[in-house]
Amino acid sequence: MENKIKVGILGATGSVGQKFIELLKDHPWFEIAELGASERSAGKKYIKAANWIMKEPLQNHVADMIVKECVPNFESKLIFSGLDSSVAGEIETDFANAGYFVISNSRNHRFDKDVPLMIPEVNADHLKLIESQPYAGGIVTNPNCSTIGMVLSLKPLHDAFKIKKINVVTMQALSGGGYPGVSSMDILDNVIPFIGGEEEKMESEPRKILGDIKDGEIEFENNISISAQCNRVAVIDGHLETIQVEFEKKPTKEEIIDVWNNFKAEPQELKLPFAPIKPIHYFSEDNLPQPKLQRDIENGMAASVGRLREDSIFDYKFIVLSHNTIRGAAGGTILNAELLKANGYLDKII
Amino acid sequence: MENKIKVGILGATGSVGQKFIELLKDHPWFEIAELGASERSAGKKYIKAANWIMKEPLQNHVADMIVKECVPNFESKLIFSGLDSSVAGEIETDFANAGYFVISNSRNHRFDKDVPLMIPEVNADHLKLIESQPYAGGIVTNPNCSTIGMVLSLKPLHDAFKIKKINVVTMQALSGGGYPGVSSMDILDNVIPFIGGEEEKMESEPRKILGDIKDGEIEFENNISISAQCNRVAVIDGHLETIQVEFEKKPTKEEIIDVWNNFKAEPQELKLPFAPIKPIHYFSEDNLPQPKLQRDIENGMAASVGRLREDSIFDYKFIVLSHNTIRGAAGGTILNAELLKANGYLDKII
Amino acid sequence: MENKIKVGILGATGSVGQKFIELLKDHPWFEIAELGASERSAGKKYIKAANWIMKEPLQNHVADMIVKECVPNFESKLIFSGLDSSVAGEIETDFANAGYFVISNSRNHRFDKDVPLMIPEVNADHLKLIESQPYAGGIVTNPNCSTIGMVLSLKPLHDAFKIKKINVVTMQALSGGGYPGVSSMDILDNVIPFIGGEEEKMESEPRKILGDIKDGEIEFENNISISAQCNRVAVIDGHLETIQVEFEKKPTKEEIIDVWNNFKAEPQELKLPFAPIKPIHYFSEDNLPQPKLQRDIENGMAASVGRLREDSIFDYKFIVLSHNTIRGAAGGTILNAELLKANGYLDKII
Amino acid sequence: MENKIKVGILGATGSVGQKFIELLKDHPWFEIAELGASERSAGKKYIKAANWIMKEPLQNHVADMIVKECVPNFESKLIFSGLDSSVAGEIETDFANAGYFVISNSRNHRFDKDVPLMIPEVNADHLKLIESQPYAGGIVTNPNCSTIGMVLSLKPLHDAFKIKKINVVTMQALSGGGYPGVSSMDILDNVIPFIGGEEEKMESEPRKILGDIKDGEIEFENNISISAQCNRVAVIDGHLETIQVEFEKKPTKEEIIDVWNNFKAEPQELKLPFAPIKPIHYFSEDNLPQPKLQRDIENGMAASVGRLREDSIFDYKFIVLSHNTIRGAAGGTILNAELLKANGYLDKII
Repeated sequence: MENKIKVGILGATGSVGQKFIELLKDHPWFEIAELGASERSAGKKYIKAANWIMKEPLQNHVADMIVKECVPNFESKLIFSGLDSSVAGEIETDFANAGYFVISNSRNHRFDKDVPLMIPEVNADHLKLIESQPYAGGIVTNPNCSTIGMVLSLKPLHDAFKIKKINVVTMQALSGGGYPGVSSMDILDNVIPFIGGEEEKMESEPRKILGDIKDGEIEFENNISISAQCNRVAVIDGHLETIQVEFEKKPTKEEIIDVWNNFKAEPQELKLPFAPIKPIHYFSEDNLPQPKLQRDIENGMAASVGRLREDSIFDYKFIVLSHNTIRGAAGGTILNAELLKANGYLDKII
Repeated sequence: MENKIKVGILGATGSVGQKFIELLKDHPWFEIAELGASERSAGKKYIKAANWIMKEPLQNHVADMIVKECVPNFESKLIFSGLDSSVAGEIETDFANAGYFVISNSRNHRFDKDVPLMIPEVNADHLKLIESQPYAGGIVTNPNCSTIGMVLSLKPLHDAFKIKKINVVTMQALSGGGYPGVSSMDILDNVIPFIGGEEEKMESEPRKILGDIKDGEIEFENNISISAQCNRVAVIDGHLETIQVEFEKKPTKEEIIDVWNNFKAEPQELKLPFAPIKPIHYFSEDNLPQPKLQRDIENGMAASVGRLREDSIFDYKFIVLSHNTIRGAAGGTILNAELLKANGYLDKII
Repeated sequence: MENKIKVGILGATGSVGQKFIELLKDHPWFEIAELGASERSAGKKYIKAANWIMKEPLQNHVADMIVKECVPNFESKLIFSGLDSSVAGEIETDFANAGYFVISNSRNHRFDKDVPLMIPEVNADHLKLIESQPYAGGIVTNPNCSTIGMVLSLKPLHDAFKIKKINVVTMQALSGGGYPGVSSMDILDNVIPFIGGEEEKMESEPRKILGDIKDGEIEFENNISISAQCNRVAVIDGHLETIQVEFEKKPTKEEIIDVWNNFKAEPQELKLPFAPIKPIHYFSEDNLPQPKLQRDIENGMAASVGRLREDSIFDYKFIVLSHNTIRGAAGGTILNAELLKANGYLDKII
Repeated sequence: MENKIKVGILGATGSVGQKFIELLKDHPWFEIAELGASERSAGKKYIKAANWIMKEPLQNHVADMIVKECVPNFESKLIFSGLDSSVAGEIETDFANAGYFVISNSRNHRFDKDVPLMIPEVNADHLKLIESQPYAGGIVTNPNCSTIGMVLSLKPLHDAFKIKKINVVTMQALSGGGYPGVSSMDILDNVIPFIGGEEEKMESEPRKILGDIKDGEIEFENNISISAQCNRVAVIDGHLETIQVEFEKKPTKEEIIDVWNNFKAEPQELKLPFAPIKPIHYFSEDNLPQPKLQRDIENGMAASVGRLREDSIFDYKFIVLSHNTIRGAAGGTILNAELLKANGYLDKII
């Protein structure tokens, strides 16, 4: 245990923070050493400060930790941030300036030009942006939960057949709205056809993620047209998305399935602890994937695709499902940290 | 009461049949006189034969009616059919041959070349197809429940700006699957991204509905590209659909809203009893319409639209909601019958 | 319109306040003239101050009213209070002292010895308590939403057969928790077996409601043992309760049903506008009443009972359903006001 | 693998049969060798015959098994039966007569005087009834899913303080109704206050389970009064029950908690593979246990209790939760088989 990297979690009482705690239990490389939250929680035992809503029971040694304020006086040099975006920007900058490595799930730094917006299977090469960062430490961010499944399923197709247009309609889970989030009175027997800011994120983030590094900077992928429509449905976990795609060169259905089935990237080669064995699982059944049935595949770290068929307006349409609080948030962030470590970026802080 | 037109209902024990019974209570023109169902039910009192699942209590005089077999020996010459498609085709033909006027919600005759596939606000002129029918009586059909809201919201736009492409993704209610329909174990905390045959109906029916009559036949509207993706969500009533549309001549947002707000057609001019005052209600709020909030607008007979915004792939995107068992099934069928009567087509049978 | 009694609503932006507004539309005796809410809302148009969550659209003339602070400078002398219990006590006292008649849905004054805890069909005679009140105006309160259905169904049985023990287990609707209330993440695919303070209310309120007036004071009904267990379930509206009851003198099943079917009280005799024609509807079907099917009976103002059967521990068990936000809150409060008016108690303020 | 006991599953395509298959994967003692189902399925590969609805993917070697008819020509001598009660009685008798050991989840033989109605932690001593059976093989049954959690939580209290009265109200999960079971249209936004036959089972089964063996026969525990009321709620898995109990000698709250916390029985001592380490988990939080949070405790094999408090009619009230398809059905049946094996009852068939 002594050899594990000590980790601090910012925003530890929120739903993303709690998911970090749940998922980091028994992590082979990282151990939770410090928890940060708002002034209101600081000074209290974690179990008193947090309203634990995860399914797995809270571990005793974490329950007893005294929550700290989110100021850069942590001993742990690796920081996971699940901070609310209303405060994340400044706090994360402060930590990075003070020499901490901040792996964030918040949106504030996503479009900083020297901050990787990272999906390890998609743009591991963006890590080198870190070298341009002005910080004594560093910052790496996670895309939005609804972006991750989409881009993960499209990346190998883009590499193989060059995508021109992406049209996506989402049916997103309640946990994506945080806790308490969506009122039960609003969603039972209902769909809410609006999620503030979500469509904009889905239309902009892929351009950075799929961009190429030129002269130390990311050249955004602006040749793809993207249109997103986002809806909230009465599902606890798992974002389901219908996707239509047009290619420069239309492949056959079999070629697409082959590309998905054979897709592996750096996290798989490095056998990172949180990396799914197969990042993309293809289902041939008419009615799969479904949130309740497939969201937990590969511990919630893989995307599931299905219903691939030709389209009369675009080239193909299909559906993709991914677990929004695991792959799409806390689990994705942990995988980012693993990628950093495997590439030596954490050497300076441990 | 004596002056009302006597009506027979085929498939009276099923969910569409029950909705006919519920909606026809107190109808100013029609009165339920006879009920037909399968052999298994025939000879029983309706209340014994049917598992009444409507919210409104069953009226006593209907409860006590003896269910008949679905053979053309009814006294009522106007027939509403909610028959299952496994038997509807032949039975409806038999009734029409025997001089009955069959207003059907089943799909079997929808693509018969001399049968109107009718949405009264959209293609009332198709009624004249009836004159080509070989039947002593006649047959008129209803489109699929997911088609109606879409076409109703698009028809005035097509008239004004000529539509070239329609892209639709649906989130459809449970009642669209009949009763008992979708298992609770399949849909609670879930979305089912597949409804058998539904996408094909949505891609084909609009071509007939929007077609023009040439030389006594419908010339299908084949210049529009249509792509549909259909999903089942945990909502009791009300199909919500995201729609993207491309026009020959892109209008402004205001022009579209004006067209919707001013849309009226023959049912409104004739003040048909089941006609909504405004067939299309536009909402400017970010998060409306929603199934639970707007499905019952104008007694479930109007479509609600909202979230109109420019699209980066098509010209515009918006959402439409309509009540699938009222406007999309039994209520739409009743409006069809009203249109027939108002145009004199029922004169020969009453 | 000029002859209607002008009404002010306190807590107008909350869910009970909104329900008052929805239900008072077209009321034959009362018209909404003023709206009060917290400082944060005061001075704004109601439509800007409130997040309207009722199903019926907000009426324009109410939407445009300027919200007032909850201080006793209203012109309307009849006040409906849906105030949060954190502030209701003092504000309601202030209004009553200043000569207003406050009909409250809040719990603060329920156990004041001179304040009626009123269910018009049950204890209309408690109205005379008002005469002992020290206020220039007056205060009348409503019981808790889960108490009302239970006591309404038990009152005629108590009169006829004298109840000794009441055992109740509730399955309560989400709307009872206010808005936003219960998080969707907590209740989807779940039951929450706890509602703070609810069991205590159900065990204490019936003692006052069923008490007799002796020498101008209520003698509590302390001869009945009451045990309550309260649960929250995924239902929008309608509290369902299983009830077991033991009598001094065990009646037959038929006697109980007769008592229920024949039950009428002062609101029915006075034909108060919000009074149900039959306060109690008995269902003989095995599986009724159900929240979704029966909650709206008599516009949500009647209780539905069913599954009456002998019990091996108590004398009988049965279930009761009542609409928690109508009969159990705003509608019940309005009926209280109607009873006051019909008995001349409002003469001094109009 | 060769040393495992080969097992046949009757009713293999139904939901209980599927759960057997899911749970027996990697069982240390048993391996699935044969599958039986109705004539309609017999002769087909299992994957073609069954509509697999479990969350865990179906194992390939089971998917490829050819389904047999349910006639006693199986090679496996240990038989798990998830047969529908319409056919289970006779088929199970046939197998037992032919020398098979049938561990059944069906209700048909539950009240045969020589058949144990078994909860291994409660009445392991009833196993010796088997010796009176006329069969070449034998039959052991499982109680109803709603009985198991209740009796498991009450057994140690009965041993310590002698129970006189049990009053139970259930909120039962959808999976208890089989598949497809409850229609989504019936349960969304609703509670169904009736489950056919369920209350009778809960009132009768505990008498046999808690009975003592006298002269080779069970003397039913008829000194306890039991009253049950059963409701279906919108929860996928996990029956929640409110229980009130009266003792001969009222213990303190702490004594009850101690008894629960220290409860262990034969399955724990024998360390049976499916035995929970602690059969009963006590929660001190106000609002626990909840179906979604605690149903999977100890792989779904333990009961969770909470909200223990004094009652004004009985001595105490509390809630109990148990997983209805694991502890309450397939998992309980497997534990029964393990108990049989550990006690040598299977020696004659292996």
